Amino acid sequence: MTGYFDAIPPLSFDPDADGPAFRHYDPGEMVMGKRAEDQLRFAVAWWHGFGWEGGDPFGGRTFDRPWFPADTMDLAEQRVDAAFDFFRILGAPFFCFHDHDVRPEGASLSESRDRLNRIADLIGAKMENGGPRLLWGTANLFTNRRYMAGAATNPDPDVFAHAAATVRDCLDVTHRLGGENYVLWGGREGYETLLNTDMLRELDQMGRFLSMVVDYKHKIGFKGTILIEPKPQEPTKHQYDFDVATVYAFLMRHGLEKEVKVNIEQGHAILAGHSFEHEIALANALGIFGSIDMNRNDPQSGWDTDQFPNNVPDVMLAYYEILRGGGFTTGGTNFDAKIRRQSLDPLDLVMAHAGAMDVCARGLKAAARMLEDDRLEAARRDRYAGWQRAEAQAMLAPGATLDGIADRATAAGLDPQPVSGRQEILENLVNRYV
Amino acid sequence: MTGYFDAIPPLSFDPDADGPAFRHYDPGEMVMGKRAEDQLRFAVAWWHGFGWEGGDPFGGRTFDRPWFPADTMDLAEQRVDAAFDFFRILGAPFFCFHDHDVRPEGASLSESRDRLNRIADLIGAKMENGGPRLLWGTANLFTNRRYMAGAATNPDPDVFAHAAATVRDCLDVTHRLGGENYVLWGGREGYETLLNTDMLRELDQMGRFLSMVVDYKHKIGFKGTILIEPKPQEPTKHQYDFDVATVYAFLMRHGLEKEVKVNIEQGHAILAGHSFEHEIALANALGIFGSIDMNRNDPQSGWDTDQFPNNVPDVMLAYYEILRGGGFTTGGTNFDAKIRRQSLDPLDLVMAHAGAMDVCARGLKAAARMLEDDRLEAARRDRYAGWQRAEAQAMLAPGATLDGIADRATAAGLDPQPVSGRQEILENLVNRYV
Amino acid sequence: MTGYFDAIPPLSFDPDADGPAFRHYDPGEMVMGKRAEDQLRFAVAWWHGFGWEGGDPFGGRTFDRPWFPADTMDLAEQRVDAAFDFFRILGAPFFCFHDHDVRPEGASLSESRDRLNRIADLIGAKMENGGPRLLWGTANLFTNRRYMAGAATNPDPDVFAHAAATVRDCLDVTHRLGGENYVLWGGREGYETLLNTDMLRELDQMGRFLSMVVDYKHKIGFKGTILIEPKPQEPTKHQYDFDVATVYAFLMRHGLEKEVKVNIEQGHAILAGHSFEHEIALANALGIFGSIDMNRNDPQSGWDTDQFPNNVPDVMLAYYEILRGGGFTTGGTNFDAKIRRQSLDPLDLVMAHAGAMDVCARGLKAAARMLEDDRLEAARRDRYAGWQRAEAQAMLAPGATLDGIADRATAAGLDPQPVSGRQEILENLVNRYV
Amino acid sequence: MTGYFDAIPPLSFDPDADGPAFRHYDPGEMVMGKRAEDQLRFAVAWWHGFGWEGGDPFGGRTFDRPWFPADTMDLAEQRVDAAFDFFRILGAPFFCFHDHDVRPEGASLSESRDRLNRIADLIGAKMENGGPRLLWGTANLFTNRRYMAGAATNPDPDVFAHAAATVRDCLDVTHRLGGENYVLWGGREGYETLLNTDMLRELDQMGRFLSMVVDYKHKIGFKGTILIEPKPQEPTKHQYDFDVATVYAFLMRHGLEKEVKVNIEQGHAILAGHSFEHEIALANALGIFGSIDMNRNDPQSGWDTDQFPNNVPDVMLAYYEILRGGGFTTGGTNFDAKIRRQSLDPLDLVMAHAGAMDVCARGLKAAARMLEDDRLEAARRDRYAGWQRAEAQAMLAPGATLDGIADRATAAGLDPQPVSGRQEILENLVNRYV
Repeated sequence: MTGYFDAIPPLSFDPDADGPAFRHYDPGEMVMGKRAEDQLRFAVAWWHGFGWEGGDPFGGRTFDRPWFPADTMDLAEQRVDAAFDFFRILGAPFFCFHDHDVRPEGASLSESRDRLNRIADLIGAKMENGGPRLLWGTANLFTNRRYMAGAATNPDPDVFAHAAATVRDCLDVTHRLGGENYVLWGGREGYETLLNTDMLRELDQMGRFLSMVVDYKHKIGFKGTILIEPKPQEPTKHQYDFDVATVYAFLMRHGLEKEVKVNIEQGHAILAGHSFEHEIALANALGIFGSIDMNRNDPQSGWDTDQFPNNVPDVMLAYYEILRGGGFTTGGTNFDAKIRRQSLDPLDLVMAHAGAMDVCARGLKAAARMLEDDRLEAARRDRYAGWQRAEAQAMLAPGATLDGIADRATAAGLDPQPVSGRQEILENLVNRYV
Repeated sequence: MTGYFDAIPPLSFDPDADGPAFRHYDPGEMVMGKRAEDQLRFAVAWWHGFGWEGGDPFGGRTFDRPWFPADTMDLAEQRVDAAFDFFRILGAPFFCFHDHDVRPEGASLSESRDRLNRIADLIGAKMENGGPRLLWGTANLFTNRRYMAGAATNPDPDVFAHAAATVRDCLDVTHRLGGENYVLWGGREGYETLLNTDMLRELDQMGRFLSMVVDYKHKIGFKGTILIEPKPQEPTKHQYDFDVATVYAFLMRHGLEKEVKVNIEQGHAILAGHSFEHEIALANALGIFGSIDMNRNDPQSGWDTDQFPNNVPDVMLAYYEILRGGGFTTGGTNFDAKIRRQSLDPLDLVMAHAGAMDVCARGLKAAARMLEDDRLEAARRDRYAGWQRAEAQAMLAPGATLDGIADRATAAGLDPQPVSGRQEILENLVNRYV
Repeated sequence: MTGYFDAIPPLSFDPDADGPAFRHYDPGEMVMGKRAEDQLRFAVAWWHGFGWEGGDPFGGRTFDRPWFPADTMDLAEQRVDAAFDFFRILGAPFFCFHDHDVRPEGASLSESRDRLNRIADLIGAKMENGGPRLLWGTANLFTNRRYMAGAATNPDPDVFAHAAATVRDCLDVTHRLGGENYVLWGGREGYETLLNTDMLRELDQMGRFLSMVVDYKHKIGFKGTILIEPKPQEPTKHQYDFDVATVYAFLMRHGLEKEVKVNIEQGHAILAGHSFEHEIALANALGIFGSIDMNRNDPQSGWDTDQFPNNVPDVMLAYYEILRGGGFTTGGTNFDAKIRRQSLDPLDLVMAHAGAMDVCARGLKAAARMLEDDRLEAARRDRYAGWQRAEAQAMLAPGATLDGIADRATAAGLDPQPVSGRQEILENLVNRYV
Repeated sequence: MTGYFDAIPPLSFDPDADGPAFRHYDPGEMVMGKRAEDQLRFAVAWWHGFGWEGGDPFGGRTFDRPWFPADTMDLAEQRVDAAFDFFRILGAPFFCFHDHDVRPEGASLSESRDRLNRIADLIGAKMENGGPRLLWGTANLFTNRRYMAGAATNPDPDVFAHAAATVRDCLDVTHRLGGENYVLWGGREGYETLLNTDMLRELDQMGRFLSMVVDYKHKIGFKGTILIEPKPQEPTKHQYDFDVATVYAFLMRHGLEKEVKVNIEQGHAILAGHSFEHEIALANALGIFGSIDMNRNDPQSGWDTDQFPNNVPDVMLAYYEILRGGGFTTGGTNFDAKIRRQSLDPLDLVMAHAGAMDVCARGLKAAARMLEDDRLEAARRDRYAGWQRAEAQAMLAPGATLDGIADRATAAGLDPQPVSGRQEILENLVNRYV
């Protein structure tokens, strides 16, 4: 037992508390017919919470944790204890992990698998004791130098095979622990320079790999969702899963658009030139929305800052799109967020999560009120009302032709007059809910 | 006759000239088995050359041209004369235009079409006299206020119909003038705010529209290529045809990936977070490469600066990807570039094009030498050579399974060692050709 | 009388209103010892409200206003009427204008001055009738093509002289109308290309110009503040008044740091790579904070979008820095913001301002509560408390030397241990006030 | 002896070589009256060449070097051997280092100093044997966790003192080894969040620190130049030495503008929103140009990529500004550039430098030709020729007043007509030299 978090009692909901507490997140509060906890489905990310040491490109570890460096099984086991202590403080319903977060890599694939299984036994035992559930598992295919030029897209077929074994083992463990999803983030599936890259070949390798993952999921009876997490770049100069639209193109090309969904991260959306709500809305439109990695990217920084969310109006717009799409099914709100490297204390880690959970709860509840009020949706429907006319519908129906429409428009002397888009009035409306 | 360019004699190829001339672009020089002119297929963009008045968001017209404001048919006709004078000076083999560039809009669709046809007669007559050919035509569906909320994606179905009529008329004229392509740039097909937008509906409208355009093309026997021009934003906050991957997703969704290709613009690629060569390489990989809008975006500016290209090493990498993909078929190099608003003189417009043509010729010739030398390609092939092994091929073949590969990798104790990507050495190699 | 805004009654404070009203901005509410109106000092920007026609680089006017195009004195006078009708609806205490916003330019400097004076008479009469006051006046030295290469920094000395005359006339009118500040925004004081630019010469010209403006201010007894408005670029590729630090350097170089302050715009700060609150805090630190142009820049757009603010937490941080610095003196909150070009209706313009005023009032009141609570400030003071020790103070005092400190540190074996920066906990704290 | 580079023979100038050689850099070639070697003054950066292990935020060491991890004096000594072997292969005339690059930190300040001195003895001995000279030394005040919240700007005065001791020791060693400059890069002198930051206090601490460094330099008789290296951010969210203008403001505020100059890095300029040549030109205009860190930043990446330069036209513009300003005095061309983490081989490191040296030599020689031809400068002078008129000069002279100029301009009816800026023609001209 590390005792690392012993000084911090479990947090409870207390809107008037002065000390550590939830001021807005009440797990049992009903929001659009579900408990807030079941709408939000919060998950703690193992890597940032227990694996990250506080380093950045210009400096090393700043955090003192009793389990660093976690390069032995003994320390890895201590870390499991600490993690579950932490989950208990927050009352977190879910967690997420990579293989690399929970066990030191072995000298061989089989040793790595064995270690993963041993830790999974330990985790599983803690889960059975009323602990949190596994939102998703995933394989780290980017830290080890063997993956420096990609995993499924590597020029060396042995790396492809190594990655296949690793994903198989992680999917097995995710299945065994009752994971609700399995995520693939292709952090090195991309390129540093086009000069040495055969892009078509690499994309085909990646498509083949994903198809086999889907087949294997069905073979073992895993009922969770396979999720791809888009990101435009970093660590690579260009990552193939650039954004939601790019992932959708890839899925269509390989016939996987019914099998695989997306896990959308705020910071990755921003780096790709989109708003978070855009990516969610697009995924909903395309039928591939799965889950979110909630965080925030510093708007003045050009890299993935993975900060905890703290802006309620921004978060509200994201949950609004999620609720408009029907809310989460297997997905949830994973905090893919890390405390700043100067936030050294155990309480910093706890309060970063607690503050973010409050921000998300405020955002969710505001979004629910706005959706239930239906004023924004009514305005949206009104704007397109003209398309309900029979003549309009006919233009979208199979028999319509360009010249048929053109002849009609010309003969009728159509001269459509623009109508206000009312953007500022709608923005004001949104501000009434936050 | 405007006489606007009378003081400037036609340019010829003269590497040692001190005054206006081509120093690198020799139309007849053989490059990879074709005349340079036929590899590069230069086109002048009517809008920037003869329509743009030198305004920016903080100031109005700076250019004195005898045909401004071109709001009468008489001035539009003078502009045609000036344009063909200009083409002759450059020896430009192609040009491109929007309807809006060549005729003032009429009070009705039918008047607009009539005017377009009258100007097209004039243009056609000049083309028959040994003038340049039409690389592509297109409809301007963004300047008139009726399109402020989109054309095909407009909330008002009458705007959709108006756009259909306009595109029909432009496609007719493009066909009549022997255009080799027809371009759709959806400058307002996107949104300013998600709050008033039904994205799925708008995407479906856009898909329906494009399908009808393709059907109409076949109906009238137009043999040219239909091209979509991606751009991430501007004027809209978000434009649906964000980049090549997004367009591909859209085409796949509507079953049009065999019918429509892309016209890739350097500045648009940059604004979307990609290099120009990335977008070309990706389009080639996906089988949808069509044509390019050559220009350059100021790397310190966050908007579409549409400057003339002037960096040979950058341009060379773009042509290298084009040549690797087999070169242009119906596409070409359209200068979607405008002189700066302080470049007031006729000679500025001429020399901006001439300088860019030289830059492109240098880039093309360097790319051709590099491709013919095969050293870069040999390095690329070597890097993936491991995939030629039977065992590797089997992993990509239909029967392979994740667990099959995983078992083999584990049993074999695979421990692949990374190999240098040699990026800097390859970059040095590239520099030997420019 | 245009009657343009006749259908819209004056807005009042009514937190429970369903229709147009202020829900948060109550001019008479006391905030840190002053009326909210006197803390916020809202101003309407004439150019966006009454001059902007809804154009963007890809399309022209969308707005129907009875006074467009305002190229005659008659229409300019109608515009004055409309503007004051608008001010009355909002109860706006201030407005701001350029010469170019209020009168059509004349054929000569003297005609332009006469026209300006005639309009100023009209404006002055309306101000006397209990109308709003002039927060600041300014000269438009960027729209006319004569200024395409700069005003004070122009390569042509006659342009410098022309600009001097224009600023003199605008400063006279600003003085006559009781303006509380005079602003210089050097929209074209920069360059498009270094290749044709003599930067040192241009900076010296600009310094000389500013010195003469300051001298003239004193000569005529103008008591208002001279303000420079930083912006990094746009319309120029590079603008000399890049950001607050750059302006401070320029003022120091010309000995004007006691005479001139800055007018900081949110969108300009963002384009320069800073947060708005950073620029305000820095200006306060350097003693040159003057006023703000409140707006917001779309985080996914790389140009100056000039939208109305709508994010309360963001705005709150800006007002927090303003209040920490003692609040406005001659400065105020000018909405340098424009409605989107699809926002066609009079009500759009009114509600855009009203919504923004509510957002600012919420932000201000939250900031005031946070400052009065002193919890954040107490945390800040604690963090630096070590510097109160005598030994620490001595290091900053005149006698200290590097080697003296070094010897002491080495002898003492100093090994300072880092302390948590508590960023997330402080961010949570902030969220308790919004 | 590591023997790490033994397989690679020294490179020589051979324009026709097929294997490793300089194709453009001939140290003895005369360029504007100096040997190319003396114009370029190339330096190898110890940290990237011998300290960097190939890690990035998503993965650890990829490079196998016999001296990793260099945490013992024995390995540090091996690294010195390897570095000088490397310098010999390149014929590099200079190198640069941080204390942290060359010696493992000791348990105390005194142990660290002793170790630094021992390594300096070793380095000094190798320099005496005809080895390269020291372009600059510097202290690493950012890697150790004690500096996580800054060095001179730290909230803890003991960190300030620790930093003072460290800089003292590094300056002593730099002086002893004949260093031509001493650099301060304030990688952590900035903030992560304004919420816990007292900016004015921190800026004053930094000013005090720098003043003491300057005093100490004079005390010990160090004749080299003190250089500040601007960077806008990373690792901090905001770094105080944002760009050249910001550093100049800081120097002016503390009366140090005659004592301290700037070391400008290409990638830092880009991250601050400037071109490299802008920052050089501005530093020359302000009289504070010192030295350059040559590298390139990936235009699609938002962080400091520190790649080797490879674009001759870009590099040429930088050297053009350097030559226009009179060339380097104590400064030089330091390659603050690192090979990509996939570039594993010793030859990659050698050829990255060699390729960059060739690129710089091509750029320098093109710049020299352009400057000697004087065509660009003649065009620049012509553009401002009007300012030679007596009337124009008078406007810039002491007696001039705003109203005096205004009256004259108005009376004369000045109506200046714009003249072409000829940007594209000048860009074409530049392309004749590369």
